[in-house]
Amino acid sequence: MKRSFIREILEHTDSDTISFAGGLPDPGLFPVEELRRAGERALGEAGVYQYATSSGLAPLREWIARWYSDGGFPTEADEILITSGSQQALDIISRYHTGRAITIESPSYLGAQNLFDLNNISTDPIPLHPEGIDLPGFAASIRQTRLAYLIPDFQNPTGSRYRPEHRAAIARDCEQHDALLIEDAPYSELYFDAPIPSISRRVPTRSYRLGTLSKILAPGLRIGWIRADRTLLTPLIAYKEATDLHTSPLTQSIAWHYLRDTDTLRQHIRQIRSRYHAKMTHFADTLTRQLPAFDFTRPEGGMFLYGTLPDTDTRALLRRCLPRGVVFVPGAEFGGSDDAIRFNYTHSSMTEIEEGIGRIREAMEAV
Amino acid sequence: MKRSFIREILEHTDSDTISFAGGLPDPGLFPVEELRRAGERALGEAGVYQYATSSGLAPLREWIARWYSDGGFPTEADEILITSGSQQALDIISRYHTGRAITIESPSYLGAQNLFDLNNISTDPIPLHPEGIDLPGFAASIRQTRLAYLIPDFQNPTGSRYRPEHRAAIARDCEQHDALLIEDAPYSELYFDAPIPSISRRVPTRSYRLGTLSKILAPGLRIGWIRADRTLLTPLIAYKEATDLHTSPLTQSIAWHYLRDTDTLRQHIRQIRSRYHAKMTHFADTLTRQLPAFDFTRPEGGMFLYGTLPDTDTRALLRRCLPRGVVFVPGAEFGGSDDAIRFNYTHSSMTEIEEGIGRIREAMEAV
Repeated sequence: MKRSFIREILEHTDSDTISFAGGLPDPGLFPVEELRRAGERALGEAGVYQYATSSGLAPLREWIARWYSDGGFPTEADEILITSGSQQALDIISRYHTGRAITIESPSYLGAQNLFDLNNISTDPIPLHPEGIDLPGFAASIRQTRLAYLIPDFQNPTGSRYRPEHRAAIARDCEQHDALLIEDAPYSELYFDAPIPSISRRVPTRSYRLGTLSKILAPGLRIGWIRADRTLLTPLIAYKEATDLHTSPLTQSIAWHYLRDTDTLRQHIRQIRSRYHAKMTHFADTLTRQLPAFDFTRPEGGMFLYGTLPDTDTRALLRRCLPRGVVFVPGAEFGGSDDAIRFNYTHSSMTEIEEGIGRIREAMEAV
Repeated sequence: MKRSFIREILEHTDSDTISFAGGLPDPGLFPVEELRRAGERALGEAGVYQYATSSGLAPLREWIARWYSDGGFPTEADEILITSGSQQALDIISRYHTGRAITIESPSYLGAQNLFDLNNISTDPIPLHPEGIDLPGFAASIRQTRLAYLIPDFQNPTGSRYRPEHRAAIARDCEQHDALLIEDAPYSELYFDAPIPSISRRVPTRSYRLGTLSKILAPGLRIGWIRADRTLLTPLIAYKEATDLHTSPLTQSIAWHYLRDTDTLRQHIRQIRSRYHAKMTHFADTLTRQLPAFDFTRPEGGMFLYGTLPDTDTRALLRRCLPRGVVFVPGAEFGGSDDAIRFNYTHSSMTEIEEGIGRIREAMEAV
């Protein structure tokens, strides 16, 4: 099996490298003091040291169910399964559907494509446009596969955001063809303006809605979840159990102690949005100034800025950038075109953004 | 996929039920104060909140390598892959070997048998004796499968412990037939007298040696690992990454802060051994007195006491025990005989042991 290019880079670059490659949050935004307090509380509970149930910590599942319900998507605690990040959520679901075919966006998240391969699921990639997946292509594909994997909010890698009418069309197709939707939603809360309701809300009995704390709190907790109808969720619990018994009750409890004061979380997410918006703007402005040939649309949220450098092989460009101490991910890694690039704009500082783009410009001029 | 009977029981019994069913450590032995201190230190580190490397926290891998080396099994840090418990270690290895056949003990650990099914590995169960797996049967099987899964120390469920000469014979068979060994070792440190060197030490380039902190520190941390030669270990890192990216750096760091003073761990393990020895003795004495028909051998370590109740269907007996508030696992769940029972003796208190065995006696007399 092929390793993720991004994670190999993550393991091989040194601390002087400016990385626009990973999907890393800004570490300056981790609410370290609040998480320490939550951690100290959790460490005082006897239950966090022992084995726990496979479905997850009850109060955490209740909190997540309330979060969805408050957002207009009625959900019960037993419609939530806690996983070790949403990567594991996707693994569990695709193991359950082993041997099937799946409709995916092209390009799409590499970690998902790897899992589909690993779990013998053949992918049918349909072109992705800025307003969402190609609708005629999706309808033709889902009719055959009856299973789709989509990232409708600030997609990885393209940053695409599905329009409301696009979401409605997808939901209708799922109903019509008796299909299931895996809706991956790590970036959904990271909008700059206002949220757009999920596709899952329109098809609550036909969808696996994935969630994670990695982008709104801290990836190091490794807390994700699946929101699904009981009929869909119950058989997955045996897979979760076979995979790793259960997610750490200690990290689950830390998460819960932090989340229980929901206002603290809401305020924290507002801060992330505003900071990421400023970073995206700075990144986009710097690109326009320093790499005018780079063709892109400004994303409306999320963590990535995607575009093309016409007539440039971006893998070759990356090889020239590495010794200069700057990295990004060529779009071809995700199944995109050879001239495409995905930039992460959330992890680097404002100065690093300027410096890193400058280094890419030098690498381009050095040809 | 079938759920583990044990974990279903764990989720459905109430707090008044005396459970001899799970493989739960004695919660009174968790070094809560030391773990809290380790936790407070870890919570102060910036790295524990961000994404981390798939292979695991470097100082923790170094510590584990040193632990093996000090015990006479020379190991380098890059021969260790951190996993979310040894359940995940087994999942990763069996995914890599998907489609093969494997020699296993009969009876064997249910969680492993489930994973082999899930990963399309067909099992060839060979009878297990108190001194180890049947040697002629093993030799005939491994020649065909060239892959084996064994739990040589205080096996689950039988408590069997492989004799040194038995280990040597297994190692010779692995060499002769160019076979790989998965040596699961969760209970290896829980001997009452003295350790017996592992089989892996004899075949360091042909073995995956699994380890875990669940039985010597706290299962809630979900920290396990694979010790293997680089050639065997390297391809597994991509599977770990696909599965859940990486294990929580926070729980890894807590483990490391606790472990770094190795003497504290050694002293703690001595305390566990002495306590479990006393509990096993009490359990065995009470069984002899209250259930004289139960035929068993006292284990030399580990967490389980296994035996038979001649002419009794122990699944039917369990159904009569449930309303009386006591549970155990019928041997048939592991592939053992219909009259077999596995008792866990580590989780209950001395009083509960007496009370629980008394309730089983009542259930037997109530027929």
